[in-house]
Amino acid sequence: MKLLKDKIRNEGEVRGKHILKVDRFLNHQLDVELLNAIGKEFKNRFEEETITKILTIEASGIAIAAIAAQYFNVPVVFAKKVPSQNLDADTYETDVFSFTKKKNYKIRVAKKFLSREDKVLILDDFMAQGRAAIGLSELVNLAGADLAGIGIVIEKGFQEGGQIIRESGVKLESLAIIDSMNEGSIKFRK
Amino acid sequence: MKLLKDKIRNEGEVRGKHILKVDRFLNHQLDVELLNAIGKEFKNRFEEETITKILTIEASGIAIAAIAAQYFNVPVVFAKKVPSQNLDADTYETDVFSFTKKKNYKIRVAKKFLSREDKVLILDDFMAQGRAAIGLSELVNLAGADLAGIGIVIEKGFQEGGQIIRESGVKLESLAIIDSMNEGSIKFRK
Repeated sequence: MKLLKDKIRNEGEVRGKHILKVDRFLNHQLDVELLNAIGKEFKNRFEEETITKILTIEASGIAIAAIAAQYFNVPVVFAKKVPSQNLDADTYETDVFSFTKKKNYKIRVAKKFLSREDKVLILDDFMAQGRAAIGLSELVNLAGADLAGIGIVIEKGFQEGGQIIRESGVKLESLAIIDSMNEGSIKFRK
Repeated sequence: MKLLKDKIRNEGEVRGKHILKVDRFLNHQLDVELLNAIGKEFKNRFEEETITKILTIEASGIAIAAIAAQYFNVPVVFAKKVPSQNLDADTYETDVFSFTKKKNYKIRVAKKFLSREDKVLILDDFMAQGRAAIGLSELVNLAGADLAGIGIVIEKGFQEGGQIIRESGVKLESLAIIDSMNEGSIKFRK
């Protein structure tokens, strides 16, 4: 997706070999026009699937999922990381390992929002080791729902998440895959 | 806003006198069609203002702000509650008191996203004591930006936030104001 890659090149900031800051348009400030282009592109990539629900995770997946959902005409459900008194007691939950924080955290979805009748598209902003996407897939499995696929805005192709998920047979569509990066240069997969 | 009030009556759940669960459409599952109607209504209510940026707070304000921003053609910035290695060191920050958790938490925005040239609209899902909205207003003040106003989806009119903000002279538009509630009944302000 050229518009996205141009945006990453022009407004992203690479820190060392692993950190890509895209806070100017994707996860702190949001470029809503870009998010619309991203939403349309996800719709194209999953056109042949009959999606009934989009699943994402707080916080930075929410805007992407909500804007994309306009093209799918389905509700969004976002998994919660932060415990809340307003969350149902009856939830599907699983542990996700955070490489940044070197520990597990729990993600939860109220059971009433995922059912055996659902065909779920998972959307998120980033994929590196793929742990969040795998955790979300587990919630879909726990509910007995079908997983239609996973859509990611930026995949760090030099980390293993994408490979693990593609080899598992799940349809994974990443709009920009970075094969390597260094301060001043980003190499996208063709 | 009739559509919203009907939705609250039909799909909201009142727990005791203070807790209103709207997880079916506003802050866990998201009804994106309703969010679009909400976004249009905010545009109507703030039509005479020249907004340059929408400011909200993670997590449940993000979808509302992103969808509404389509009608204003401006970027969204969401304040962070959770510390992140990807956040700039150079931030505006302030403390917000949480009545639920009975302690302060910090909210932060990278300085580069708010400037003296900005005219900011604050949007959020709920207002009760108003502490989050007041905290966001402080970030706007710290940046030297103008506050165009505050838009809230559901105001608990029986708590003091709305009154404090209106008396301070800030334009506050709440799409549904609840004057009292009990299990089985919700009284909206006319």
